[in-house]
Amino acid sequence: MKGPILILVGGVGGSKLVWGLCQVLSKTDLSIVVNTGDDEKFYGLHVSPDLDTVMYTLGDIANTITGWGIQDDTNQAIKMLEKYGEQTWFTLGDKDLGTHIRRTNLLNRGLTLSEVTKELCKSLGVDQNIMPMTNDPVQTRIVTDEGEFPFQEYFVEKRCLPRVLSVKFDGASTATVSPGFDRALNEAGAIVFAPSNPMLSIDPILSLPTVKERISRFSGPKIAVSPIVAGKAIKGPAAKILEEMGKEVNCVSVAKHYQNLCNIFVLDQTDEHLCQEIVDLGFRAETTNTIMTQPADKVALAKTTVKLIEGQ
Amino acid sequence: MKGPILILVGGVGGSKLVWGLCQVLSKTDLSIVVNTGDDEKFYGLHVSPDLDTVMYTLGDIANTITGWGIQDDTNQAIKMLEKYGEQTWFTLGDKDLGTHIRRTNLLNRGLTLSEVTKELCKSLGVDQNIMPMTNDPVQTRIVTDEGEFPFQEYFVEKRCLPRVLSVKFDGASTATVSPGFDRALNEAGAIVFAPSNPMLSIDPILSLPTVKERISRFSGPKIAVSPIVAGKAIKGPAAKILEEMGKEVNCVSVAKHYQNLCNIFVLDQTDEHLCQEIVDLGFRAETTNTIMTQPADKVALAKTTVKLIEGQ
Repeated sequence: MKGPILILVGGVGGSKLVWGLCQVLSKTDLSIVVNTGDDEKFYGLHVSPDLDTVMYTLGDIANTITGWGIQDDTNQAIKMLEKYGEQTWFTLGDKDLGTHIRRTNLLNRGLTLSEVTKELCKSLGVDQNIMPMTNDPVQTRIVTDEGEFPFQEYFVEKRCLPRVLSVKFDGASTATVSPGFDRALNEAGAIVFAPSNPMLSIDPILSLPTVKERISRFSGPKIAVSPIVAGKAIKGPAAKILEEMGKEVNCVSVAKHYQNLCNIFVLDQTDEHLCQEIVDLGFRAETTNTIMTQPADKVALAKTTVKLIEGQ
Repeated sequence: MKGPILILVGGVGGSKLVWGLCQVLSKTDLSIVVNTGDDEKFYGLHVSPDLDTVMYTLGDIANTITGWGIQDDTNQAIKMLEKYGEQTWFTLGDKDLGTHIRRTNLLNRGLTLSEVTKELCKSLGVDQNIMPMTNDPVQTRIVTDEGEFPFQEYFVEKRCLPRVLSVKFDGASTATVSPGFDRALNEAGAIVFAPSNPMLSIDPILSLPTVKERISRFSGPKIAVSPIVAGKAIKGPAAKILEEMGKEVNCVSVAKHYQNLCNIFVLDQTDEHLCQEIVDLGFRAETTNTIMTQPADKVALAKTTVKLIEGQ
């Protein structure tokens, strides 16, 4: 490869591919840029759900049952916070709170989110290069028929029930890409769009100044992996939102979303009949198993991705 | 009584008498003013150990085995914080962290420590009037032969091992008594010095501007209960510090400490032979059981205290 693979990623689904890539690539061959539009303050603590999901996944301590937080966690602190009248719809486990307390403490001491992330990763023995998309505050806000909500409120408290009209990224236009993201864009040998929610996890990253332009101009392999399989999202509200926004709920809509940004589109083998439509949009279409249930699935998809890059 | 009893209190020992008084008095008859010289920031969270001990004790959730924190607590968050490289010699349980997170959040929103304390108490169903001595930062610092330490570092990390030379209360001279303490001093029908460490728990309160003068001028009953019994502190380093400061380790030294501030001195029945020395210092001396092991002991000592006040 001509340079490290830059992967843009959100939460659970994308993290699985990142985990797979970490098994087949050396750490210098992968730059992991993570959405921070979902970051939120709870009880004065800075929570970075997607950064944590990636970090916990690579540290092999992620709670794979819930899809967030740390395995074998307890809820003693949150129960006290509930007693104290705090809103506790965003359940943070006790171990998980350790992360947020530490992050907040380091941020308050003047470290950037990038520096804090590096520090947290080091402590957990995660030596891969995980970076926030920006060190500046950007907030994903969901405009719905019931009003406008910050992402977590829509996603967790409202359980994605309101009908989505549009998605906004407050602060994005004046934010700067993190130094690590900037370097990764300069050095990248390939760019991968993880199978994360395009509207909620990848768009915040793309909404940062110059990012879309730089990716468009990038002449190397650009691969998107569809998070929509057989008309359904593997996890999360991607399918529901596509529908609410008047789009077809299939991987073709995802491909359209990435048109002009990607040249290779990986779709699940069950969607093979949609290949021609993808090709007609100007992509090279590749089918494989994209459902990552077992570690072997993650490694296989990672290997396919790397092979597509090397084949270019 | 001519007004509420104002009790000055530190940690565990004093809290037991406060608990006893709460069983025999209506809540409007007791003003509880608590030492905040031990307050400390851990991981950016504001911890008020004495306020919490009093609050948890009155809320019947105190961990009576450790003497601090909440019963049946776990240590998941602190183990994570340890992994992240935070100093964790001050063990904060998960439930307990809920308190500190909530307190810090409310303080950051602009509430005073008095207002926060009221809010926390309300949530825990504690309707007694617990007040910090001041809303301003005051830090008890222990000057020892191994250097100067903030109280918690001396007490917990150094396990009280260094030899104490003197005790300082940083910030006290420019601090103001809390509005509740001010009101309690104005309205008091009696003042009680709880059986807390005189040098470490009561002196910070007395070090605040005007407090000593106002207590000296107060003409009603002023009762001190000795925390030293049979030459030993029931809990904590009071005996060790008295000795290191070249004083006799007995209740007479405690009485001397409160000379001109108190007129009644309650000592344990096992120290009855010291009564005359106490009387010679100008006190009325009262002996009773001051060791509060069982709830009945606490109530009995509280009743004795109230009787002494009413008998005046």
